Amino acid sequence: MPGRYVVIMAGGRGERFWPQSREATPKHLLPIVGDRSMLAQTVERVAGVVPRANILVLTTEAQAAGCRRACPELPAENIVAEPIGRDTAAATGLATLLVKRRDPQAAFALLPADHVIHDQAEYARLLQVAFAAAEAADVLVTLGIKPTEPATGFGYIQEAGPWRTLDGREVRAVKRFVEKPDLATARSYLEAGGYFWNAGMFVWRVPVVEAAFRAHAPELQAGLVGLERAAASRDSLAPALAALYPTLPRISVDYALMEKSTNVVVVPATFDWDDVGSWPAIAKHFTPDADGNVLRGAAMVEGGADNLVVSDDGHLTAVVGASGLVVVHTAEATLVCPKEKAQEIKALLKRLSADPARRKFL
Amino acid sequence: MPGRYVVIMAGGRGERFWPQSREATPKHLLPIVGDRSMLAQTVERVAGVVPRANILVLTTEAQAAGCRRACPELPAENIVAEPIGRDTAAATGLATLLVKRRDPQAAFALLPADHVIHDQAEYARLLQVAFAAAEAADVLVTLGIKPTEPATGFGYIQEAGPWRTLDGREVRAVKRFVEKPDLATARSYLEAGGYFWNAGMFVWRVPVVEAAFRAHAPELQAGLVGLERAAASRDSLAPALAALYPTLPRISVDYALMEKSTNVVVVPATFDWDDVGSWPAIAKHFTPDADGNVLRGAAMVEGGADNLVVSDDGHLTAVVGASGLVVVHTAEATLVCPKEKAQEIKALLKRLSADPARRKFL
Repeated sequence: MPGRYVVIMAGGRGERFWPQSREATPKHLLPIVGDRSMLAQTVERVAGVVPRANILVLTTEAQAAGCRRACPELPAENIVAEPIGRDTAAATGLATLLVKRRDPQAAFALLPADHVIHDQAEYARLLQVAFAAAEAADVLVTLGIKPTEPATGFGYIQEAGPWRTLDGREVRAVKRFVEKPDLATARSYLEAGGYFWNAGMFVWRVPVVEAAFRAHAPELQAGLVGLERAAASRDSLAPALAALYPTLPRISVDYALMEKSTNVVVVPATFDWDDVGSWPAIAKHFTPDADGNVLRGAAMVEGGADNLVVSDDGHLTAVVGASGLVVVHTAEATLVCPKEKAQEIKALLKRLSADPARRKFL
Repeated sequence: MPGRYVVIMAGGRGERFWPQSREATPKHLLPIVGDRSMLAQTVERVAGVVPRANILVLTTEAQAAGCRRACPELPAENIVAEPIGRDTAAATGLATLLVKRRDPQAAFALLPADHVIHDQAEYARLLQVAFAAAEAADVLVTLGIKPTEPATGFGYIQEAGPWRTLDGREVRAVKRFVEKPDLATARSYLEAGGYFWNAGMFVWRVPVVEAAFRAHAPELQAGLVGLERAAASRDSLAPALAALYPTLPRISVDYALMEKSTNVVVVPATFDWDDVGSWPAIAKHFTPDADGNVLRGAAMVEGGADNLVVSDDGHLTAVVGASGLVVVHTAEATLVCPKEKAQEIKALLKRLSADPARRKFL
């Protein structure tokens, strides 16, 4: 019987968690929520579903060493670095190739490295439902998140009604994948019902996703076939990757495959889920003090409420008479930002990037 | 002819400049404004008026080494430490004794160590006017600051009209010294005119201030006489100080002498003056950027105005999307506080003081 694999996508930069997230220490390598890195928590979460030998991590060259340190229980060869970022469709193709080299008929899950999910048991159960669906038919399975607000930062999945019963578990046929909407559109989705957030969690079998590449992204598929042949001829992936991966078209997996495929189904997620996309989003994962302040490390608030203050044990970070701030101290840099302005951090990082004397703080 | 001396009072704690000011590095040992410590700038300012050998610094034992480092051009024995703080009247008595041991008839100025005065030439001129007044009659001379706002943080000096002409320079008789007023009273002083801020700058001759102690603070005067005799009998001040200084009554010089004396005159200050009593007060001594932000060290503001951000060159402190904040980073601690809440820093320090695990951050 074909095996089950998990490929964890761990290549993000996590700019929105500056200054804790830096170029070599992105969000998934930090203990943003919890005591271990987000990646280590993700590995732990899926280790109940597939053997550790079948868990792969796809990352960047800059982050590969950090990923190996974060996941000492995984075989070192299971952490694979893209020589260069070519967007998520190419990464999906590479993940497919990595699994195919081990088991050409395997089903595998593609999962982000940096989401927070507390209910591990329910998560494991749903992931098994998704694997069962992927193994039961030639479908591209997604896990969809029930929207709680008209978010404009996610793509949406519209369901088309029940698909088929898998031992009584709910799986839905998908009518369409849609790109990140504007606010009015997002609101209309919430009112209409039958929409899920696309959290980038997919499960499929190798032959099924290969068929999708052939049908909807032939140029990329040709490049992937070339990569597979080059790796086979030298019996080594690394030189083939270095030579050919940079030539693959840059395109997202949503645009290349998901929006065009007609064989998509969605498993509605029944576990808690948070992509913790910014500093303000982490506050709800911690117990606040009586004034709603979340304090980590040597952090204090005097005469203020609803602040998130992140320090370390050796450095006191104190907010006096202010409310609603994010204050994050690290050894190299300190950020002070009202919660509702957190998206402006990117403008700061852009200025840093353009300043040779201060690039080191990125 | 009797000499002229200056005794710089450098014992303050400077809590309001936490976290730059710490227990061993109070405000006057920091370059809050300018490139050198406030104390070094004060010494430099008076060195044009009296010889450096005649400049003494009165400080605390914890700060004595720092004061010597800040003033390498002063004889080490000119920096004298109180064994314990006993308020400003006892310190004035000790200053009088220190000068008297060198010259019993000398005139001396008592000056704070931590004020900002840019116009050194005018300052030197006025200080000489004050010395001349003190030498011309048995008076207690003060330098009074013309109020620019109804401040409630200073005592006030009410003038009684012209005193006598000293080469055409203005010196005023004083009607009364008054304690720090409430806001309504301070406003009435400004409207009435004829009031000055008491900035704690005094000039008098040894015999004249001794007479004031005898007349208005006999208990303290008796203690000071005992201290003088004990020092003379052993020909050493330090052991006498250690034994007797802690027994002196705690009282302020304003209350003990100035409010009760009838021979007070005031020299209206014609130099710029700022006691820079808090973080927000330092901003006006620096050139702001186009948005009114004052940035020191590796400090940045993105999308905010009117902030004061103090960092060091090796650590980036960034404010994003916020205005009107004081943000001060040091290696040990970081403060974030709206400018108008700066007085609440004291409440924070009180909490730190009560917390054994965090006292180290004071």
